[in-house]
Amino acid sequence: MVIVMKSHSTDKQLSAVVARVHAAGYRTSLIKGEETTIIGVIGDDRPIDRTQFEMLDGVEKTMPVLKPFKLASRDMHPMDTLIPLNGHMVGAPKIVVIAGPCSVESRPQIMEVAQAVKEAGATALRGGAFKPRTSPYSFQGLGEEGLQYLAEAREATGLPIVTEAMSPEQVPLVARYADVIQIGARNMQNYALLNAAGEIDARVLLKRGMMSTIEELLMSAEYILAKGNAQVMLCERGIRTFEKYTRNTTDINAVPVLKQLTHLPVILDPSHSTGKWEYVAAIARAGIAAGADGLIIEVHQNPPDALSDGAQSLKPEKFAQMVIECRKIAEAMGRM
Amino acid sequence: MVIVMKSHSTDKQLSAVVARVHAAGYRTSLIKGEETTIIGVIGDDRPIDRTQFEMLDGVEKTMPVLKPFKLASRDMHPMDTLIPLNGHMVGAPKIVVIAGPCSVESRPQIMEVAQAVKEAGATALRGGAFKPRTSPYSFQGLGEEGLQYLAEAREATGLPIVTEAMSPEQVPLVARYADVIQIGARNMQNYALLNAAGEIDARVLLKRGMMSTIEELLMSAEYILAKGNAQVMLCERGIRTFEKYTRNTTDINAVPVLKQLTHLPVILDPSHSTGKWEYVAAIARAGIAAGADGLIIEVHQNPPDALSDGAQSLKPEKFAQMVIECRKIAEAMGRM
Amino acid sequence: MVIVMKSHSTDKQLSAVVARVHAAGYRTSLIKGEETTIIGVIGDDRPIDRTQFEMLDGVEKTMPVLKPFKLASRDMHPMDTLIPLNGHMVGAPKIVVIAGPCSVESRPQIMEVAQAVKEAGATALRGGAFKPRTSPYSFQGLGEEGLQYLAEAREATGLPIVTEAMSPEQVPLVARYADVIQIGARNMQNYALLNAAGEIDARVLLKRGMMSTIEELLMSAEYILAKGNAQVMLCERGIRTFEKYTRNTTDINAVPVLKQLTHLPVILDPSHSTGKWEYVAAIARAGIAAGADGLIIEVHQNPPDALSDGAQSLKPEKFAQMVIECRKIAEAMGRM
Amino acid sequence: MVIVMKSHSTDKQLSAVVARVHAAGYRTSLIKGEETTIIGVIGDDRPIDRTQFEMLDGVEKTMPVLKPFKLASRDMHPMDTLIPLNGHMVGAPKIVVIAGPCSVESRPQIMEVAQAVKEAGATALRGGAFKPRTSPYSFQGLGEEGLQYLAEAREATGLPIVTEAMSPEQVPLVARYADVIQIGARNMQNYALLNAAGEIDARVLLKRGMMSTIEELLMSAEYILAKGNAQVMLCERGIRTFEKYTRNTTDINAVPVLKQLTHLPVILDPSHSTGKWEYVAAIARAGIAAGADGLIIEVHQNPPDALSDGAQSLKPEKFAQMVIECRKIAEAMGRM
Repeated sequence: MVIVMKSHSTDKQLSAVVARVHAAGYRTSLIKGEETTIIGVIGDDRPIDRTQFEMLDGVEKTMPVLKPFKLASRDMHPMDTLIPLNGHMVGAPKIVVIAGPCSVESRPQIMEVAQAVKEAGATALRGGAFKPRTSPYSFQGLGEEGLQYLAEAREATGLPIVTEAMSPEQVPLVARYADVIQIGARNMQNYALLNAAGEIDARVLLKRGMMSTIEELLMSAEYILAKGNAQVMLCERGIRTFEKYTRNTTDINAVPVLKQLTHLPVILDPSHSTGKWEYVAAIARAGIAAGADGLIIEVHQNPPDALSDGAQSLKPEKFAQMVIECRKIAEAMGRM
Repeated sequence: MVIVMKSHSTDKQLSAVVARVHAAGYRTSLIKGEETTIIGVIGDDRPIDRTQFEMLDGVEKTMPVLKPFKLASRDMHPMDTLIPLNGHMVGAPKIVVIAGPCSVESRPQIMEVAQAVKEAGATALRGGAFKPRTSPYSFQGLGEEGLQYLAEAREATGLPIVTEAMSPEQVPLVARYADVIQIGARNMQNYALLNAAGEIDARVLLKRGMMSTIEELLMSAEYILAKGNAQVMLCERGIRTFEKYTRNTTDINAVPVLKQLTHLPVILDPSHSTGKWEYVAAIARAGIAAGADGLIIEVHQNPPDALSDGAQSLKPEKFAQMVIECRKIAEAMGRM
Repeated sequence: MVIVMKSHSTDKQLSAVVARVHAAGYRTSLIKGEETTIIGVIGDDRPIDRTQFEMLDGVEKTMPVLKPFKLASRDMHPMDTLIPLNGHMVGAPKIVVIAGPCSVESRPQIMEVAQAVKEAGATALRGGAFKPRTSPYSFQGLGEEGLQYLAEAREATGLPIVTEAMSPEQVPLVARYADVIQIGARNMQNYALLNAAGEIDARVLLKRGMMSTIEELLMSAEYILAKGNAQVMLCERGIRTFEKYTRNTTDINAVPVLKQLTHLPVILDPSHSTGKWEYVAAIARAGIAAGADGLIIEVHQNPPDALSDGAQSLKPEKFAQMVIECRKIAEAMGRM
Repeated sequence: MVIVMKSHSTDKQLSAVVARVHAAGYRTSLIKGEETTIIGVIGDDRPIDRTQFEMLDGVEKTMPVLKPFKLASRDMHPMDTLIPLNGHMVGAPKIVVIAGPCSVESRPQIMEVAQAVKEAGATALRGGAFKPRTSPYSFQGLGEEGLQYLAEAREATGLPIVTEAMSPEQVPLVARYADVIQIGARNMQNYALLNAAGEIDARVLLKRGMMSTIEELLMSAEYILAKGNAQVMLCERGIRTFEKYTRNTTDINAVPVLKQLTHLPVILDPSHSTGKWEYVAAIARAGIAAGADGLIIEVHQNPPDALSDGAQSLKPEKFAQMVIECRKIAEAMGRM
């Protein structure tokens, strides 16, 4: 951290700040400029609250020097983390495609979609049994019954299952059925849930909060990694902006940024990041072109009948077309 | 809801959309304009997913007519909800002031602050025992030990306690100690937690998420109300914007908007909504002038030593001064 | 437009609103719902201020039905507009690439870059002679001298020139030298400038404002089209969000959205939309994969010496590599 | 500025960066930390583009130390700037209130409103003759005819006039009629216009862009000050956020932040910052309570008939009530 003193601060104020840094166990080095003095704080200052020092008399501001995440950082772990999924490795050149309905609605519905996405080349099946919904009056998911249908669909198709857990106490239950536990965007900073996900031996798909920075996403991954679970995939699913033509704004920049900052695989969710099926294929292709390791896509056999997220779900034939287009882009990138 | 057809849509497409609305159990009424036709959907369509209809051939867009919240709405409940707190009613003319440290750090710390804020005229004591922190390397709170210290501080000062629960399983524990259970900004859409808060008989302070809309805040309140708990106070604590000079942007507009839309009391948290102690008093005054029913303020006897949020904490003497200023504004408003 | 009445509004209020709509020259059609009544306003109500009606007693809100833009809309002009540039047509399958430095700094600098981007396959040369800078203390551009150097570079390379005009009175001067007049992001709603650009016979590259919606971009294009100039290319250059890791957030969704809403060609500027050269190639590829008709890229022979935007400028060899990658993506898309 | 080296950067890279800083005419001082080295750049580095250094091999990032504005800064000019207006000083304890219609629509309209706001205690009259409108199909203002009506209203009431200039060439014309030239939000970074406003001897009201940071507002003021015109009032008028219940989000934090950072007076525009007349009085009071030096308010004798901004305009009697409330708040603040 660097502490910038005010231009009219006194020597006494400077000494007091330096003394306090020393008391916290760090060394200091000063740079006297023409208008102001800055204090370099030497040592791993991640655990302390930087803004404390902004309270001290004579201090203008503080600025962080070190990245706040360590285990998630490529600085500490230069090699890509690879996570096995259905005979492939997420993070390897082959693009993975996770697909399925927003919600599990019934046994026939999930069986039919599972078959369809498998035929189109999907790597895994998604489907929500526990659904976080803005309104208490909306469909909230089938719960464990939905998990059972997912397990039957896996049995029938061989596709591994990606499904969401919404609270720490759901984690063991979901882990009994799921191959990959999803932590949803609204729960990205549900620390009790992150800790629970860090304590089990299971693959985790961590979605970026719609209001969260890239750094906060990596800090949430850090919670899971710090508890000992290294099998984390990150998912960009769009952020909230002033633009209202689409449901969210795909932060496509996040794809190369994350690939540079972290060794964890990066998945793009163009269904949520656009909110309209017409744009899903275009943004899926863009994600691959930007360097994403995979996609997660909402597919429904009859989107207008979907109990949730119909507007952003692809019909199976559109999905199959999208997979073909994305594979071509992947090949143009030297991937598969 | 209103469904707008595309300008080049066909009669057959129109008929298909109308038939689907009827199949969902609603009536329709058509308006044929010069460029397009719109379909009015008649009935309480809150439970259905409006965007489903956007999938249908020939549909341009849909627009909601009804407000999505009911129990939280002033339309259904024109009188202000009043919630008792330490001999006052939150929502009545007398302004309430909840104050205390971000985190409970030790018994002497909380006892000293509690005494100081009581003397300055606080209505209740705040302090976190379970702390949601962006980094796993930051101080995470004292847990139940912190709750015990809070209870001791209540014993000593008579101030009721406001403290946060972070997960559904913490709710019963926190409820044993707290007078008001806080649901934090990061958990505003933690539906398992909202449901748990709706199922107990306790007062709840629900903080707006940092990137949640006013409507979403009311929908989260609706979760609690729908489970049968009507004792909900709403808290504006700043939203995330592109402006980086302050930690958050106080959405002061939300104060009169909420007072108009809902019967629930509205509290302002200028400590979080500014993130810098220098601005807290000015924004506290602004909140009262805009019509807030109360304030929640971070106070620490020695902010640079605070284990969290030091930069936005007031010293007790600054806090006492702020209370005096705010009471003057309240009087100018015909309040107390 | 649709006018939604309040749930407790009276018949008298309804009649008054209807009367006022009629007085404004429109017809009405009513839909009586269970909780509220809505009024459909029939006719082209684009010229009137919809929010006026929100002032009337008993009105809850109004919602637009018609798109506010007409000339820019694909509804009115289904075929793609094609704009000639250096023997190609912008908007046709062949991707155009406009490249060059942020600012023209000297004759040798622009000559060297022009040669380099030409060799790498650029379609046109960009370079700023008039520079909008946040600080009055920053380099403000060479002015007309810069335009002359650009003209010399065109002479030497055959590349047409894209350069910015910052005020209406600069338009004739810039038009004397430039092949395409750029209207910068900060001037997207400088209506005097838009009108001036609409009144001359010249191609225009209109950049989206950093916090302007897609609809506002189209409304600004509408200003130019309404004055009779139909040669408008739109440019997505990133929007301002809470994410601070990149300078802006590329709104990649805007590419397919614009291609659907309008017949005008769409160019992506990944240099500004990321602000860091490391991410430019990835986002350029993403733009092509999403359906953009072209790219505009900042290139400098020695970026650390650039007088502006060095951090986001590619060296010529990186640019050449990027063009190769983008052509591969274009081919995978069935383009060139 | 401070330059942070990457954790794995080499000594040779460090030397190269240092050499380049020296070549730019600055001195350096190094701080070697445990994970990284930082370079302090000594001297006034405002004129150079900080991001250039981020291009250099081994550099992680750069961070500014000095504030980018000088003439606008309170560091350089600790005393409040006071600007005379109708016998008062803007910036002194007495609150100023500028009021009038969004647009000048006719002679009788402006005469009537002028009389009404004068009686209610307004300090000055506002009204637009040149109107920046999102749509080319909306009313664009009466132009010079509107300026003449404003002058007549001044003659009749004695109220000075505040009105907008939209382009540099309008500045002399507007200056002939107006007492205060307004630069609108959409033109906050129209540098040709800022330069023109800096070169005349006239009071300027500079509105913050809806997409602009506080720092950018001060940089735009710096343009005017740097040209020699010191009579600048700043105006907070709401920023664009994801919240859509109000037209904009009032950045109330900006009031105390600006009062701390700069010596220039600060005016709040609650009409634009809320967009709905119901909230104007509450936010006007909040602005005074937060420390604003004045208000600018839209008033119309019959808002539903207004040619622009009807929804956010107060009727004269509501405005008169608002002035009374705001004066009470001002008195509670020790102002007038």
